[in-house]
Amino acid sequence: MTVAVLTSLARPFLGDRLPRGIEPVWFETPEDLLAHAADAEIGWFDAFGSAAMPEAVRQAGKLRWLTTVAAGINHLPLDLLAARGTTLTNGAGLHAGTIAEYALLGMLTIAKGYREVMRAQDRRDWLQTPPGKGELAGTSALIVGAGAIGGRIAHLLRAFDVAVTEVRRSPGPDTLRPDEWQARLGDFDWIIVAVPSTPETHALFGPETFAAMKEGAVILNFARGEVIETDALLAAIDSGRLGGAFLDVTDPEPLPPDHPLWSRENVHISMHLSGRSQDTIFQKAAERFLANCSRFLRGEPLEHVVDLRAGY
Amino acid sequence: MTVAVLTSLARPFLGDRLPRGIEPVWFETPEDLLAHAADAEIGWFDAFGSAAMPEAVRQAGKLRWLTTVAAGINHLPLDLLAARGTTLTNGAGLHAGTIAEYALLGMLTIAKGYREVMRAQDRRDWLQTPPGKGELAGTSALIVGAGAIGGRIAHLLRAFDVAVTEVRRSPGPDTLRPDEWQARLGDFDWIIVAVPSTPETHALFGPETFAAMKEGAVILNFARGEVIETDALLAAIDSGRLGGAFLDVTDPEPLPPDHPLWSRENVHISMHLSGRSQDTIFQKAAERFLANCSRFLRGEPLEHVVDLRAGY
Repeated sequence: MTVAVLTSLARPFLGDRLPRGIEPVWFETPEDLLAHAADAEIGWFDAFGSAAMPEAVRQAGKLRWLTTVAAGINHLPLDLLAARGTTLTNGAGLHAGTIAEYALLGMLTIAKGYREVMRAQDRRDWLQTPPGKGELAGTSALIVGAGAIGGRIAHLLRAFDVAVTEVRRSPGPDTLRPDEWQARLGDFDWIIVAVPSTPETHALFGPETFAAMKEGAVILNFARGEVIETDALLAAIDSGRLGGAFLDVTDPEPLPPDHPLWSRENVHISMHLSGRSQDTIFQKAAERFLANCSRFLRGEPLEHVVDLRAGY
Repeated sequence: MTVAVLTSLARPFLGDRLPRGIEPVWFETPEDLLAHAADAEIGWFDAFGSAAMPEAVRQAGKLRWLTTVAAGINHLPLDLLAARGTTLTNGAGLHAGTIAEYALLGMLTIAKGYREVMRAQDRRDWLQTPPGKGELAGTSALIVGAGAIGGRIAHLLRAFDVAVTEVRRSPGPDTLRPDEWQARLGDFDWIIVAVPSTPETHALFGPETFAAMKEGAVILNFARGEVIETDALLAAIDSGRLGGAFLDVTDPEPLPPDHPLWSRENVHISMHLSGRSQDTIFQKAAERFLANCSRFLRGEPLEHVVDLRAGY
């Protein structure tokens, strides 16, 4: 029997569907997880809101396969997993739908000045003049990051009659290559960041990139906070050149209460909630996990395996 | 020469493009408008936020053609216009794009609990748990109102993988006839109201319609406040049966400061701003107006003429 230490969040969807040969140990709390991690040959350690997951991985010396619902995995000890020969599978793609919906929510909120409308309702004030008169239709967007999230955002934006350009290695219509887009930044009303967090994308957006953007352009970050240099972003906001920023992710994270990003009138913070603003992630992930369990028991390669060196 | 009393809001787009034979009188203020209305043979009287427009129409005894950027025209003295033989043209369709964008903003705001996110930012609170976990994808929507607005909303929702049903006189796939939809109200997660305001649609949504909706369903109103019985809506909200309401329009309007709709946690009020949350309405309307000017001078029928008896 293979011992699998599994999050109780997945239990409603796995229940009695686990294949024979797998002995599940369900954990409810971070303490539970740490108590059983050392026995785990298979691990599904997702325990949101705690620091227990990387620590559990460190203690899990028998771990042959670790899975997570997360897409970003830069909080895990990847070098240790690589040294042990542990396979890591992630939830890449499972969040694309809800993150893309969030991206549209952010763009529409900014275009219509909707935060002012919500605040006016809170003070029972019937506004006479729209606080935002932007329309998505007829604008242009650059999507930096060619994964499932970027692709889904592109699909939605095209329905809104936004002219979408995607960054991809393979040339195609409405596509820029990774070495081309920086020179074209000035062409776009919206810059949407959805790259994986790797050493190459660290501080991808700094003073030069903000200086190259169109005046009044808006940047949205659904990647990782570290992809944008926070000081350069603040300088671009405070100079008035940048039209706004919608940040699902920030650097640092969580943002401390005295951080200047909180209070800028055209900065919107959504607290890394976008990918979790759905109620079906564990259901979707459980289906993937069951399919991978069968492969694991047959000794076949797993699907959605992370390249531990590339980091995605 | 035909005297045309015209809103200065249109002047940047009409300027020197008016055809010979039309003598423009531009007004800046409601007082200006009332001072010149009696001379008008052609009138473009849009003066937002004032009660001057219906009064100007009453004083405009020579008026042969009245135009407005508005789609809804139930604030105008239609019987008087009919009695005088004045032709009324409206802005039907010019608002569809921005109203449809607003409808998606409303649905996404509710699905993701975004008002709570915005309030958390205002108090510098990094939320750990998403306040809304709904996804548009996989839900179902009924669109009541088969005009340009409803059609555009349907187009956008289909991109989000929402199962859309439209109410139309002509049968078709994913369509219900006007005598069929009330019996099917329980099938839908979202009910989107975009009918014209006429005697037939007055109080179209009352206690029985709310009782027939699916538990937790959300209603959105982009038509006119009078289409929904406010008391019945409040009762449905307070009973907990209705999941929420997004009201671009209300009855009464503006909503007085002590009105209970302001304070309900799952009622969202956008103050009839949706159609005006764009910066190109006068530009679009000016193109229509110029085309109609030529028809008017040639004695041809105008386009986008309102049926004064039907009221749309």
